[in-house]
Amino acid sequence: MEDLRRHLGRIADLNAAAAVLEWDMETHMPDAGVAARARQIGTLREFAHELHASDETGAFLAAAVPSSAVDQDLLRVAKRDFELAMRMPAELVGEMARVTSLARDAWKTARERDDFPAFAPHLEAVIDCNRRKAEALGYDDDPYDALLDEFEPGMKTARVSQVFADLRTELVELVAAIAEKPAHDDALLGRYFPPDRQWDLGEQVMAEIGYDFSRGRQDKSAHPFSTTFSVTDSRVTTHVHPHHFNPAFFGSLHEAGHAMYEQGVDEALDGTPLASGTSLGMHESQSRLWENLVGRSRAFWDRYFPVVQAYFPGALAQADPDGFYRAINTVRPSLIRIESDEVTYNLHIMLRFELERAMLSGDVPAADLPEAWNARMQEYLGIVPPSDAAGCLQDIHWSLGAIGYFPTYSLGNLMSAQLWEAMGRDCGDLDEHIRAGRFSVLLDWLRENVHRHGRRKTASEILLDATGSDLDAGPWMAYAKAKFGALYEL
Amino acid sequence: MEDLRRHLGRIADLNAAAAVLEWDMETHMPDAGVAARARQIGTLREFAHELHASDETGAFLAAAVPSSAVDQDLLRVAKRDFELAMRMPAELVGEMARVTSLARDAWKTARERDDFPAFAPHLEAVIDCNRRKAEALGYDDDPYDALLDEFEPGMKTARVSQVFADLRTELVELVAAIAEKPAHDDALLGRYFPPDRQWDLGEQVMAEIGYDFSRGRQDKSAHPFSTTFSVTDSRVTTHVHPHHFNPAFFGSLHEAGHAMYEQGVDEALDGTPLASGTSLGMHESQSRLWENLVGRSRAFWDRYFPVVQAYFPGALAQADPDGFYRAINTVRPSLIRIESDEVTYNLHIMLRFELERAMLSGDVPAADLPEAWNARMQEYLGIVPPSDAAGCLQDIHWSLGAIGYFPTYSLGNLMSAQLWEAMGRDCGDLDEHIRAGRFSVLLDWLRENVHRHGRRKTASEILLDATGSDLDAGPWMAYAKAKFGALYEL
Repeated sequence: MEDLRRHLGRIADLNAAAAVLEWDMETHMPDAGVAARARQIGTLREFAHELHASDETGAFLAAAVPSSAVDQDLLRVAKRDFELAMRMPAELVGEMARVTSLARDAWKTARERDDFPAFAPHLEAVIDCNRRKAEALGYDDDPYDALLDEFEPGMKTARVSQVFADLRTELVELVAAIAEKPAHDDALLGRYFPPDRQWDLGEQVMAEIGYDFSRGRQDKSAHPFSTTFSVTDSRVTTHVHPHHFNPAFFGSLHEAGHAMYEQGVDEALDGTPLASGTSLGMHESQSRLWENLVGRSRAFWDRYFPVVQAYFPGALAQADPDGFYRAINTVRPSLIRIESDEVTYNLHIMLRFELERAMLSGDVPAADLPEAWNARMQEYLGIVPPSDAAGCLQDIHWSLGAIGYFPTYSLGNLMSAQLWEAMGRDCGDLDEHIRAGRFSVLLDWLRENVHRHGRRKTASEILLDATGSDLDAGPWMAYAKAKFGALYEL
Repeated sequence: MEDLRRHLGRIADLNAAAAVLEWDMETHMPDAGVAARARQIGTLREFAHELHASDETGAFLAAAVPSSAVDQDLLRVAKRDFELAMRMPAELVGEMARVTSLARDAWKTARERDDFPAFAPHLEAVIDCNRRKAEALGYDDDPYDALLDEFEPGMKTARVSQVFADLRTELVELVAAIAEKPAHDDALLGRYFPPDRQWDLGEQVMAEIGYDFSRGRQDKSAHPFSTTFSVTDSRVTTHVHPHHFNPAFFGSLHEAGHAMYEQGVDEALDGTPLASGTSLGMHESQSRLWENLVGRSRAFWDRYFPVVQAYFPGALAQADPDGFYRAINTVRPSLIRIESDEVTYNLHIMLRFELERAMLSGDVPAADLPEAWNARMQEYLGIVPPSDAAGCLQDIHWSLGAIGYFPTYSLGNLMSAQLWEAMGRDCGDLDEHIRAGRFSVLLDWLRENVHRHGRRKTASEILLDATGSDLDAGPWMAYAKAKFGALYEL
């Protein structure tokens, strides 16, 4: 086991180093450094891959004798990682890299020029690579299973389809009902919020909910992200808009949620493949829990409205907590996923999940994507994008080769509500804790039930142990109906 | 050649990545991250070393067919690097790592407690490792040659001894003559200089002398340094003292001098072993040239005194350019090398050079170092440290295993004056250029004659081609006598 741990530790070190270089590239690096930096990151990732997908790893795995429960988990996870890595032919890995390198540039230009036909052949090539990837990795029922499994280990396409189907009808109804009600006035969120004050407020609240700045830090970047170099160093970034309150504030809560998950992993797992969040869905459950279930709750603003008002006397002197709470919970069908609200967000995801499957099966050729996209936008949200740039070209994910990634965003939303319900059963009135600033009650529960396990448990195992049931759309739907039913007087 | 370049490029990428991780550790990393970070850096350096000191490198070097002058230089330098790496037995590399790891901790504690005897056995072990290193690397005349060569390729101990001897007598006389004159009043440098304003001033002046912020940046760290990740990304750090003008301002000029050297290397060499300064001495010549020959000159302050006065009206409203110029050029024998002035600095270095050689030969056992140190301090500077903490325990270098490093600081001073003289012959009145802010005239000359070559030329070749003579103490001594003779009315 010691040899295996050391070997895997070196691979983890190479990947952590690559993550540091990527973090620096997005936060501090002078622009001129980009070409050399891309080369350096490429070299590190190559080394890590070569070292991992090697006979050496196979030999260490075969020779390892586990002497503890952690050892057993480590061995199981490492074997699975290794098998998947070895199933990918080097030729396909190389082609994927070439195809996505071209697709990324083509996507960027196509979006700028609103020229989907220029991107279509690249998208088709990405889909084709993913078909071959699915065949290489193997699956029982559905090729999409193999792709989904990379981001959400153990999750099946059929299960996601079923859960999304449960959700969709009710969600479309809820959105339609809200659309008939008077719109919330959220104009005050577009006033001037001095950037330095936004920054300070964000860091104050992050620290108060439990993000550990002694094991992390916040920096500025064009697109917010969180990244982890070790259990003792998990960082976030944010982007401050002077004339919009939401992006920095809720972005910081969101990224802090991700980073607090990584900070909560048992330190004894550091440097092993077990030391990270167990799936993208479970990760997103943590970011969404702090951003939405905590950060957009009435109880939270009972506590924080006076604080925020004091930070921004210019923008908020005449505002009141009720109006502010309504403003940050405006529901409005819109075109862009990342700008959409808590309720409509999941519909954006379902649309993508369905279209990914349709493209993968060949039912929707890449060239026909805009038509299929716009039809679903009409059906789910009642609006149609005026351009592909604001439609099927808006996200970068497909150009990076990622098929099977999108559904994890909604899985995260659903999981967050399941965990929230269970937390309420275990910890008492969560609103009371939030109003009193006892965020540690929430965080301790998450640490105990979710964070500390790292990858020792799958998302499904965590849900079962913590909530008594597997993935389930019920709690989130109930939460959304109750919250937005009250807000919109349905 | 292409295979060799790619192979060496990957090694360079690993080392650059380690440098990024070190930079982050000193500037931004949360404290708790230190253990994981040390492990990550260790892994990268190990990989880089394994990959370099390998049969693979030997095979690439043997098979490479140069087809240009750059190829020939690359092959020559890479072969030399490889030979030296292969001469070091793995067992000695390992022992060196263990010995210095213990020595560093022991030094830190010993300095804090002023307990030299606790450090002495560690120092003896470091010296012994260096004796074996010298034997492994090989030398013609003097074991010290082998150690010096690592930091100053091609330089010989005998030559350094001779040059230092030329210097020492005159320098001791100059220091003594100054000591008899009325002391300069430099109290104004200890007033309050608001840190943010110091920062802004430093960045303004760095940009004006030619440091390219589009290919670099400045951050804060406990100890200032410069570091290079590529020709397109060469960074500096500084440390701001609210009650001392010198450290941040002259520190920024110094580090910018180092970084401008790296920024000036021909971009075509990036990613190869040729893409860096050619020796520590030549590197120090660049930092010292901008810090002292430019930054402490009368012409510089003719231009910048009003600027700096406007930055610090509180501290400098009543000051005048003459008094300020005298203050920043105060000569005063002192105990600590890094706080010493332009004139006495070289005596601190000579002392260390002599004692390194004496320890290496066994003439001075490590245990007897304090006595030998204090005797030389009395002889050269006329003062004796009241404690070993302020004496032979003040520097970290020996505890890191570096023997042969110190003399390069003084070699840099000497080279800077040689280059300055030649620059004056080629470019006309340098004071006039400085007064007019035409720093690009100086920088262009340095780029042409020094920077762009990277490691294609040795320091000695650069000096010969640029100045017509090899290393020579004459120009620096003439500069010091003229400048400080005028300042102290000798």
